Amino acid sequence: MSFIALLRHGQSQWNLENRFTGWVDVDLTAQGEAEARRAGALLAESGVPFDKLYTSLQTRAIRTGNMALENAGLSWLPVSRDWRLNERHYGALTGLDKAETAAKHGEDQVLVWRRSYDTPPPPLEAGGEFDLSKDRRYAGVAVPATESLKLTLERVLPYWNETIAPDLRAGKNLIIAAHGNSLRAIMKHLFAVPDSDIVGVEMPTGNPLLIELDANLKPKSARYLDAARAVKLPDFPG
Amino acid sequence: MSFIALLRHGQSQWNLENRFTGWVDVDLTAQGEAEARRAGALLAESGVPFDKLYTSLQTRAIRTGNMALENAGLSWLPVSRDWRLNERHYGALTGLDKAETAAKHGEDQVLVWRRSYDTPPPPLEAGGEFDLSKDRRYAGVAVPATESLKLTLERVLPYWNETIAPDLRAGKNLIIAAHGNSLRAIMKHLFAVPDSDIVGVEMPTGNPLLIELDANLKPKSARYLDAARAVKLPDFPG
Repeated sequence: MSFIALLRHGQSQWNLENRFTGWVDVDLTAQGEAEARRAGALLAESGVPFDKLYTSLQTRAIRTGNMALENAGLSWLPVSRDWRLNERHYGALTGLDKAETAAKHGEDQVLVWRRSYDTPPPPLEAGGEFDLSKDRRYAGVAVPATESLKLTLERVLPYWNETIAPDLRAGKNLIIAAHGNSLRAIMKHLFAVPDSDIVGVEMPTGNPLLIELDANLKPKSARYLDAARAVKLPDFPG
Repeated sequence: MSFIALLRHGQSQWNLENRFTGWVDVDLTAQGEAEARRAGALLAESGVPFDKLYTSLQTRAIRTGNMALENAGLSWLPVSRDWRLNERHYGALTGLDKAETAAKHGEDQVLVWRRSYDTPPPPLEAGGEFDLSKDRRYAGVAVPATESLKLTLERVLPYWNETIAPDLRAGKNLIIAAHGNSLRAIMKHLFAVPDSDIVGVEMPTGNPLLIELDANLKPKSARYLDAARAVKLPDFPG
């Protein structure tokens, strides 16, 4: 038996501006920092003796993890970072706000992208402002040009299976500080959510979802630690 | 060829109060936090493409490393933490300020402890306020009850040889966020400082010492990145 806390990063500047962020390294707002600290207090109050932190390679998730650990008195925990926990890559939508996206692509098309599990937006233009394929941070990584939620899941899951799951099977209690869609991929896997339903599963920012797992890594219980900001959870797998 | 930046944590509350801290997990002061951020700016300005951060298991070094990386735009660097980079354990002196130590042990004895390479203070009382031997953070670690600088070096060096040196030989550029005495141990090793001289080697807080190493890990050049707060360096080994 082990616990995993899924922690979506606190509010970022582009969450606030309602722009597609994806892999762009946007930082937290002051509110996002406060959410991260509060998440740390809630993780400490949970009484779970956490053993390790996982993060993406993106500043907003890393800082959320750092601030949460510091506020929980757990800054000494070992940390592993991996690009496979990064946010979904939004391709050509990157940087656009809602109005810009609708004006450029039409509201019907935007709805398709938002509601579809496996339709990626058009690829990001190579060499542009948001192209990270030559960023030193991603040396050796085949940086995607766009991703559907399905493609996101297809790079999150191997990391889950090869790295995170063995830690859980060894009885370690983990915190994963990551992003709306990389965490959605993990929730789809853990709760066996159908393709058609997963885009409807939301996760609030900075509110740790504490999941108790049995020996087969099936969820036995799950709750948002900030109950006042909890949202509906998927059904438990049968 | 590779670079290593030795970064002593910013001012802590007990640095300020002039108390023996050792393994007690005292946090940074506001000044210490400012020093950490400034260290990050200096590390970025150095132009060295750092690859990895090493820290002790103590909050003041971890937070110094976190804040420096964040301010350098390097929060995504992989991090390894290890107790062997912890501060020297001051035994029964832990928690005492200068006046208390002199009153309790006599000024002559204090001078012996301060100037000696291999005389440890009396051991810390087991089960007392500062006994960390049952702390979850140190599970599996034989927590010392007291250490001389020599004993500190004898646990820092194996970690250097087994973990840090191979990274440097592979050409990685490293930042080590640690403590006055664990960094002194590394300086003694790198600069071949005699036993009799090493206690006289000081390192300012929050001022990265950037050392360029040759293929045999011998220092080729070394400079404090905040030149205005630089102190004398040991002679280069012949």
